[in-house]
Amino acid sequence: MSERPDPVPPVFVLVRPQMGENIGAAARGMLNFGLTRMRLVAPRDGWPNPAAVAMASGAGRVLDAAQVHPDVAQAVGDCTRVYATTARPRDMTKVVMTPEEAARDMAAHVQAGGRAAVLFGPERSGLTNDDVIRAHVIVTVDVNPDFPSLNLAQCVLLMAYEWRRATHAAEPVRIAMAGAEWATAEEMEHLARHYEERLEQAGWFWPPHRADSMKATLRNLWSRMPLTGHDVQILHGILRQMVRWARRGGRVEGDGPEA
Amino acid sequence: MSERPDPVPPVFVLVRPQMGENIGAAARGMLNFGLTRMRLVAPRDGWPNPAAVAMASGAGRVLDAAQVHPDVAQAVGDCTRVYATTARPRDMTKVVMTPEEAARDMAAHVQAGGRAAVLFGPERSGLTNDDVIRAHVIVTVDVNPDFPSLNLAQCVLLMAYEWRRATHAAEPVRIAMAGAEWATAEEMEHLARHYEERLEQAGWFWPPHRADSMKATLRNLWSRMPLTGHDVQILHGILRQMVRWARRGGRVEGDGPEA
Repeated sequence: MSERPDPVPPVFVLVRPQMGENIGAAARGMLNFGLTRMRLVAPRDGWPNPAAVAMASGAGRVLDAAQVHPDVAQAVGDCTRVYATTARPRDMTKVVMTPEEAARDMAAHVQAGGRAAVLFGPERSGLTNDDVIRAHVIVTVDVNPDFPSLNLAQCVLLMAYEWRRATHAAEPVRIAMAGAEWATAEEMEHLARHYEERLEQAGWFWPPHRADSMKATLRNLWSRMPLTGHDVQILHGILRQMVRWARRGGRVEGDGPEA
Repeated sequence: MSERPDPVPPVFVLVRPQMGENIGAAARGMLNFGLTRMRLVAPRDGWPNPAAVAMASGAGRVLDAAQVHPDVAQAVGDCTRVYATTARPRDMTKVVMTPEEAARDMAAHVQAGGRAAVLFGPERSGLTNDDVIRAHVIVTVDVNPDFPSLNLAQCVLLMAYEWRRATHAAEPVRIAMAGAEWATAEEMEHLARHYEERLEQAGWFWPPHRADSMKATLRNLWSRMPLTGHDVQILHGILRQMVRWARRGGRVEGDGPEA
């Protein structure tokens, strides 16, 4: 029996992070999308960091389990594929991916038994070239060139979001039905006919040479609407009520009869 | 001449936002991905809000241009398609999309001349059912069910990110070449042959019946590597140096001759 072990989710490595708040927010962003493996390289304010804990709130367990390393080499020592997030281009020959592409690449890598790490640089300066050289892949978020400043926690959030998208089957557009059912074609046909008959009586299809085109327009309107059976009953009810009202002479309570 | 006007980018509507910091962070997230049209419905702490301005830093112009409305109806009055972001399911019949699907839907809608609005609820409680009823589409981010709390600014960031992805042609995986060029097949062939010859001389292909398979393994290794012409020259240089060194008797500076 040579069963393949379960894929190991990627580690997110915060390299020389400065603000505890950002470490805490990064932990939240990771856990929002199901990631829990954080490593820290030489955090500026030491470790543990109360500001990180305060910001992490419900994601404190990510911080509790975080490993601290003195340098990037040790932080990624057990990893087989390393991704470096960078905002600016580097003068080196290296594969560059979007977060989406990187997440898919990472998912394939860990599925095949590899171990992936994503490096995030310090707030002010980003990763150094020495850090980036260790990576197999550069990841760059396509941002507005006039305002490219993504903060550390935002960058972590986007990578974690893409990781979840890459590893959870995308659900197609769906309709929350709240127990309702779509109207059948037959119900729609009855509805269209009901309105046509009553509007005919009310003299709406005028002038006569335009009647067919007006009816077609109305039919098309109904068919564009995603109506439930219940919606159709409401539309019937509205029309019936208008007919009743018309037969009473269109009087509003308290008004006299119309002139 | 009936030229179609330029598509109008979506407005992001923060409904009854509580913390100024979150409004400022939302403005940053929008501008990071090129969006500038913000509307506020009844912000708790009034408007303008100094905490929002402080947090927005470079994105202050988004706040400066933000419109304030007393209710959702007025905030989306000029819009033709409304999206409501919600974390929890609602008991109503409505299309539900992921952020990616919603962004594509929105891009198609504004491209066709429509005007789109995205509603974001207050930090603590999210949008009310009355707010959601006004929307054509519900947008829900697929999060870790054990830790689903996305904050307001994070939700805005993800929607803005997906808007940019939907409206900017996705760049395929690319290689930053830093002026380098890929090695040609001929260069690779010379490299493989150079190593084979020298390793043959060095006695590496042993035992003889395994030589062919060892050579194939080595060829395969070279072909898997994305080498530039310059990389190939380095690999030639390494091998030449080892040969020179071997001819000198493998002596390390300062060592005597090997026994």
